Parts: sequence; C-alpha cells; structure tokens
Amino acid sequence: MPLDLNSDLGEGFGAWTMGDDAAMLDIVTSANIACGFHAGDPSIMRRTCEVAVAKGVRIGAHIGYRDQAGFGRRAIAMDPADLRDEILYQIGGLDTFARIAGDRVRYVKPHGALYHSAAADRSAADAVVGALVEFGAELALLGPADSQLEQSAAAAGLRFVGEGFADRAYTPRGTLAPRGTEGAVLHANDAVAQAVSIATSGRARGVDGREVKVTAKSICVHGDTPAAVEMARRIRESLHDVGVPLESFA
Amino acid sequence: MPLDLNSDLGEGFGAWTMGDDAAMLDIVTSANIACGFHAGDPSIMRRTCEVAVAKGVRIGAHIGYRDQAGFGRRAIAMDPADLRDEILYQIGGLDTFARIAGDRVRYVKPHGALYHSAAADRSAADAVVGALVEFGAELALLGPADSQLEQSAAAAGLRFVGEGFADRAYTPRGTLAPRGTEGAVLHANDAVAQAVSIATSGRARGVDGREVKVTAKSICVHGDTPAAVEMARRIRESLHDVGVPLESFA
Amino acid sequence: MPLDLNSDLGEGFGAWTMGDDAAMLDIVTSANIACGFHAGDPSIMRRTCEVAVAKGVRIGAHIGYRDQAGFGRRAIAMDPADLRDEILYQIGGLDTFARIAGDRVRYVKPHGALYHSAAADRSAADAVVGALVEFGAELALLGPADSQLEQSAAAAGLRFVGEGFADRAYTPRGTLAPRGTEGAVLHANDAVAQAVSIATSGRARGVDGREVKVTAKSICVHGDTPAAVEMARRIRESLHDVGVPLESFA
Amino acid sequence: MPLDLNSDLGEGFGAWTMGDDAAMLDIVTSANIACGFHAGDPSIMRRTCEVAVAKGVRIGAHIGYRDQAGFGRRAIAMDPADLRDEILYQIGGLDTFARIAGDRVRYVKPHGALYHSAAADRSAADAVVGALVEFGAELALLGPADSQLEQSAAAAGLRFVGEGFADRAYTPRGTLAPRGTEGAVLHANDAVAQAVSIATSGRARGVDGREVKVTAKSICVHGDTPAAVEMARRIRESLHDVGVPLESFA
Repeated sequence: MPLDLNSDLGEGFGAWTMGDDAAMLDIVTSANIACGFHAGDPSIMRRTCEVAVAKGVRIGAHIGYRDQAGFGRRAIAMDPADLRDEILYQIGGLDTFARIAGDRVRYVKPHGALYHSAAADRSAADAVVGALVEFGAELALLGPADSQLEQSAAAAGLRFVGEGFADRAYTPRGTLAPRGTEGAVLHANDAVAQAVSIATSGRARGVDGREVKVTAKSICVHGDTPAAVEMARRIRESLHDVGVPLESFA
Repeated sequence: MPLDLNSDLGEGFGAWTMGDDAAMLDIVTSANIACGFHAGDPSIMRRTCEVAVAKGVRIGAHIGYRDQAGFGRRAIAMDPADLRDEILYQIGGLDTFARIAGDRVRYVKPHGALYHSAAADRSAADAVVGALVEFGAELALLGPADSQLEQSAAAAGLRFVGEGFADRAYTPRGTLAPRGTEGAVLHANDAVAQAVSIATSGRARGVDGREVKVTAKSICVHGDTPAAVEMARRIRESLHDVGVPLESFA
Repeated sequence: MPLDLNSDLGEGFGAWTMGDDAAMLDIVTSANIACGFHAGDPSIMRRTCEVAVAKGVRIGAHIGYRDQAGFGRRAIAMDPADLRDEILYQIGGLDTFARIAGDRVRYVKPHGALYHSAAADRSAADAVVGALVEFGAELALLGPADSQLEQSAAAAGLRFVGEGFADRAYTPRGTLAPRGTEGAVLHANDAVAQAVSIATSGRARGVDGREVKVTAKSICVHGDTPAAVEMARRIRESLHDVGVPLESFA
Repeated sequence: MPLDLNSDLGEGFGAWTMGDDAAMLDIVTSANIACGFHAGDPSIMRRTCEVAVAKGVRIGAHIGYRDQAGFGRRAIAMDPADLRDEILYQIGGLDTFARIAGDRVRYVKPHGALYHSAAADRSAADAVVGALVEFGAELALLGPADSQLEQSAAAAGLRFVGEGFADRAYTPRGTLAPRGTEGAVLHANDAVAQAVSIATSGRARGVDGREVKVTAKSICVHGDTPAAVEMARRIRESLHDVGVPLESFA
C-alpha cells in the first residue's frame, strides 16, 4: 500500500519566511499550501505551486482563519456561513495558481485552530465540508481521523483521508496523546520507527507500551526547523528502504 | 447598438456598507464587484454574485491594490509581478463565487488608484493584462480608452472595452476634463443628456461647447449616494426611451 | 446624583462610515472611541478626539479584538498576555490623539466580543485590567456590573463603573434579559422611561413586571441608526427635564 | 566624539521572525523598533523595549507605511495628514511599551519606503516632522543627511541626527552610491574600516578613491543575516579598539 507524506508549505508572508520549502518539496508527496489568510501571499502561492508541480508534488489548500497576527493558531468564534465563504475564497485563490502551474488543487486540509475546531465542532466541520462541496472539483479532505470533520465528510459523500503522525505518541484508543503529557512527542529515532510501523503494519506503539491500530494513508511531517527537515528526510528514506511506495492520495 | 451600464458594487467590508447595491443591480447590466483587497469580503462577494446572476447582470472583477485602509485609492509602488499575482488571486476568489451563483467572471476592471496607474504606466498595465491572459478564461478588460491599458490589451490580443462617463465633461481631445476644473462634473440633467448622446451619436458636448467624439460600449454610473442612484436610474430610463437596448458587453 | 451617557463613536474605517458621530457628540458625556483594532483609524481617532474635547465630552478608549473583518464581534481565543499588549497599544495610540486634542484618555471600555469575554472569563478580564494598571494613568474601567471585569478591577484597586441600558429589559436578578427573549429590547417610550427611572430611583421595571434594582452611573446609548440617535436625544432631554445633571464619571 | 550605532529591530510579526535581535541589542546603542505598521506587533514591541532598556540601548520609533505585505518597502501615495496621523499612532503605541519598560521613545527614524519618501519629498518630510512636533516629547529625528527630512526638521526647530553607513560607498558629493552600481556595497573589511574612518576623521573613501567628508553621529548596522551581525560586531570592536566611545545620541 502506498503512503503519502504531507507537510505545511508556503507559510511565509511578504518579507517573512517560514521553514525550508525547497528541502521539503523533495521529501513530501503532498503540499499543504497556505492560502493567504493565516500565512502565504499570492506571490508565495504561485511560486510554491510551480515548484510543487515541477517536482510532482500534489497541491492541497491549507485553509485557515483570517488571522495573520496569530498565524491561524487562535480560534475565531465566527459565523459558519462566513467561515464557509472565507474557505471558498482561499481555495479559489490557490486553485488559480495551481492551474497556472499546470495542475489543480487536489485536496484541502484545515490549518491550526481551524484543524482543531473542525475536528471537535460539527458546525465548523460542516462549514469546511460545505465549502468543498460547493467548490465542486471533487476535492479530498485531509485531516484528523475519527473527528467531526470525518463524519461531516461522510455525510456529504466527500472523500476523507485521515492522517497519522510520526512524532506523536498515540493513546490506547488511537488518539494522539495531548502535547505536554510525558512522552507525547517522540524523538527522531522513535518517530522514524513509528512511521515505518504505521506504513507496514497499520500499528503504532501506544503510550502504555502496547500496540495500537493507526490507519493512515498520509503521514504529516514538518519543515520548520533543520532538525524537523532531517527527520522528514529520514522517514522518507526509511519508508523507501522497507519498500513502501511513496505516493500522494490525491 | 446596445449599450452597457457598469457600476462599482460589493464595496462594503464586514459590518461596513457602501452604496445601494440592491438599487443599482436593477439599473446596471454589468457589476464591477470588489474582490476583497480594497473592499468587499467573501460573504459580500457571494451575495453580490448571487443577486447579480438572479437579475441577469454580468459579473466583473473589480481588482484593486491591497489597501482597505485607503479603499484602494492610493497608488502603491509595488513590483509588477507581485501586482499581477495579487490580481490573479482576486479574480480567482471572485470567480469561485460567480461559479457558485451559476455564472463566471466575465470581465475585469481596475479600481481607484490602480485604474489610474494602469492607464498611465505600461508596467502596471502589463501586470493587469498579464493576469488576465494567465487566468485564461477569455476575460474582457474594461477601462479608460486611449490608455496604456488599452495598448497593453491590444498587444496581448485581449478584448478591451473603453468606458464613457455620463457625468464628466470631455476635453476637445476626447479625454476627461480633470476634476476640479470648472464644469468638469456635470449636473444630473446634463449627465442624462450626455449618456443619450454618447449612446445614439457617439458624441458628447466638450468643455468648449463643441462636439467631441466619444466611443464607448459602456457607461460608468455610481451608486454611492441617493442622488447618484437617481441619476443612474434616469440614465437607464432615458436610454430606454430613445430605444437604446441595454445589454452587457460581456 | 449626576448621570453619564456613553456611546460608541469613531467606528468608521477609511472610506467607510458608521453612525452619526456629530449628533451623538451633542448628546453624550462620554465617548467610547474605537482605537483601530476593530474599527477606527488614526485620522478618525484624531478628529473624534478633537470634537469630543471641543464639546466637553470625556474620551474613553473603546478597545477591541484585532478583527476589522468581524468588527470585533467575534471572540478570538488568544493568549492573555498578547491581549493585554494589544490593549496597551490601543490605549497608547488613542491617548496620543487625546493629548493633541488637549485632554487624555480618561477611561476604557471593552467592545463587542471582548466586552463579553471580559465579563465572563477571568483571564480576559485580568488582561484588560492588567493593561490599565500598566498604562498607569488612573484610568477608570467602564463595563458590565457584577462581572469578572468588575471583580478583577476590584482586586487591582481600579475604579470600575457599571453601566446600565435604557433599551434593554432586566431580569429579576438585575441582569439583562437575553436578546431574542420576548420583551428583551424596549421600545423608545419605555427606554426613555427606564433611563429616567434608573437615574432617579436606581430601579427599572423587570421582565416580570416587578421593580428591580439597577445601580448605574452611566447609561449606554447608540447612534448607529437615526432612530437610535433620536432615542438617545429623548433620553438626554427627559433626564434634563426631571433635573438629573448629565456629567461624565470620568 | 562619541558615536552611536543604530539598527532596525523588532521586525518580526506574530509567528514570523526577522534578524537576530538578541545579538544586535548587545552591539548597538540605539534600537529602531518597528511599531506594528510595516512590522512588529504589540508583544514584540513590549519585549524588544524591555531588553533594550535592560541593556541600556535607547529606544527609537521605527515608523513605516501601513503595509505588512510589503514590509514597508513600497511607497504609498497617501494624504500627508493621514500619514502624520498614522505616524503619531505608531509613536504613541511604542511609547506605551517604552514607558512600561522604564524609559521613553527618544527618537524616530522612518523605515524603508518612508525613509526615501521623506528624504526626497517635502510633504512627506513635513508629515514626519509634524508628527514629532505634535507628539511633543522632544524627540530627535534620525535619518539621511542633506535631505528634505533634515530641512523640514530644521524649519521646525527639531533636533536632526544624520546617519552614516559603514557598508555603503559614498559619491564625491557625500551621497550614497546607488545600490546596483559597481562597488556600491562594501565588503566586511572595508565596511569596518569605513566605520572607523567616519568616527575618527569624519571622512570616508569615495567611489573615485578620493576622500569624502561624512558627518555622522550614528552609523546604521544590520542584523538580518549572521554575516551582517558579525560585521556589526566587528565594527563595534574596532571602534572600541581605536578609542571611540559608543553612546547613543538620544
């Protein structure tokens, strides 16, 4: 079974940069590209789409709250219809640059606080899903499994792809151990091993030491620090070494 | 020969409103809809597109500088490639809502300071035209005749539509008399007469009293005050009375 | 006992206007002036301060979330320290224009979603109060009585002024009947009578018809519609007729 | 004669960082701190002021155009009165954090496109100078010598401090050789030598090889790259080695 590696890219803004996009676009198979609301701007969106297409990386719209000052990490208690419209605007903007680069937006992933809102709150989830349905390009939705987002997508007949995490510990119930609890964030070696385990056996070792089932067609990796980029590269190489084909779900 | 009436619409922002869009959408045949950079927001864009389509009014992208604080009325000395990308993002965003409403963006008109920059400066004009070419939906370009914008459009093989003004006096050379000079802005009765004259004979009475040739397939009318709306309504009725069919160029 | 009338002013943004500030500055004794985060901009702040000082109206900083697109009406789940710093920046900005106009910021009132957050959530209340303490100009705090905001102010030794509402019905417990419940919003005649009753007897007629105690040194009035301005004017005149001196608390 | 070293600091925005402020605050004697319009936010302003005061570095308001997307590097053709008001708002905001940190804003330096506008255009220069006069705290103005800014400051009786550049070549007339011309940007060794020469003899070696007079009480150094920080550190050490006391002008 092929596996996808996804990462958040195009997160600069004007003169400000974030992460090592060039390196990550050699590692991942799917690029979650910021759409100008929490990060990114039209020129960054164009350039990131161009490089993604040149490297065969699939383009996803990384939608977020309109909050550059907070990098989309703060929930905004907004009207669901307004949220849906802001998401549509973001997808439409990015799709323009994806088309110019020779492809299309293939999927959508919520960013930051919207990721968590849409996982836990059905009205936020429905706003995301409603936007995808209205956009009408058979977009897939990438996000947290067993969430309101997955349920809303199912109800709308939308393709949902759950993602796994290499560097986060799982509870026995298959959810992520909360950040801040002991052992919640894995070190590089353990993260690489967990990625391989999820890919080859659909299992991770839980925080209690026992195996836990993790179904994921995509693993989220990060590029915001040199150590993160190095970990992502090792995950890619280890998956290759054990014969897991890397391929986008989208 | 049919004539088009165009107006700037969807220029609110969040809780702020501007102009009487409902009234104007019963008067005009083409709606220049703000795209979120100088005015407008996704929810206003959606609603304005929906009403425009319901009334058979053509949708145009009213592109502007990224400057809500200045309502797009202040030139920004920006890199032409960045300008092109910001225009693409705006068109892509609006087109999403036009599609949802059942139509497409049919044309583009620059707003405010960008209108003037693109009229006078070839690099700004080329940024606008370059965006339209890249967007690739056979968009028409609405703007000032005899301008860099028209020349750039011609060079790119893009359809350009020059607009006339009912309430502005023309110089003997066919250009607008500068605001602030005596008689530059016409009173309502004269404006209605000028609209009819442009539509039926392709001529306006110049500031020196002699006739001047004005070729325009579209007349720009305003809705920012009740008096402006009333003037627009009278222009529409007078054109109808003399048998000029009102129809969008787009 | 003198009574204060306060209203939200300076809520335009660039080319957009909101409410009839000129009329309201002849009615109120305290002006809650927007500080550029949810509404207002530096030029509007300057002008509103100048007119307020010329008319003897006290200047208050109407602080809000950084959210022009939502007019400050949407709660943002932000770090309390960041919130405190954003409030300080807003007060400092407005105080500059108050000083230029010949006075100072005398008090602070949270706007919209921040009003409600700071009423209900102690960490938001502490962020507001912490900002006032750090600003260090013996600012009063205007807001909802019996709230986290009042308690936080008391704990910090800050002067708190609770406001009453003329056009909102009170529950038997002295809190506002929720909008949307029957009779929650009073008609003009009842609102005028309630303002007089609060001013002269410290009582309002509750939703159940019985009297309820309402202690308020300030009554909040609105200027967003002509009808609201007219109601505010009638409240002012009625208070004058029954001999209640109108005077700011600040 | 003591010399000042100034640098642009606090230029991050939310999650985005720019330059190595911690290192630079050990090198410079004056910190040009961004005020939230082209860069910076309230929390960054507070923190930068706190560290500056702790290290004895003077605080200056680094004012800019309202243009985060362009980092203040693009001229905005705005009304001078609006520009003056935006500058006042920025100074007032930063001064709040300077006061909390135990000092005050001591001087003002325009940033980016505003630096160039105010150098060349008298109305922009007057807007800057007018803001300082109105702010009324006897602020010094730091900027390019022999400029409209200097003339406007002189006319207003405001203290102006011209700055020199270590790493930029001077023309025989004492102005900066334009970037892009050969030899316009000096290598590290030459830059260090030029700083020492300006400090000790008031002279630099011009592009034509002959000496040129450069009067500067402050030298501008940069911290945006590790190489720039290293150059700034060497300049500081070399000045110390030749016995030039480093001290802010403010």
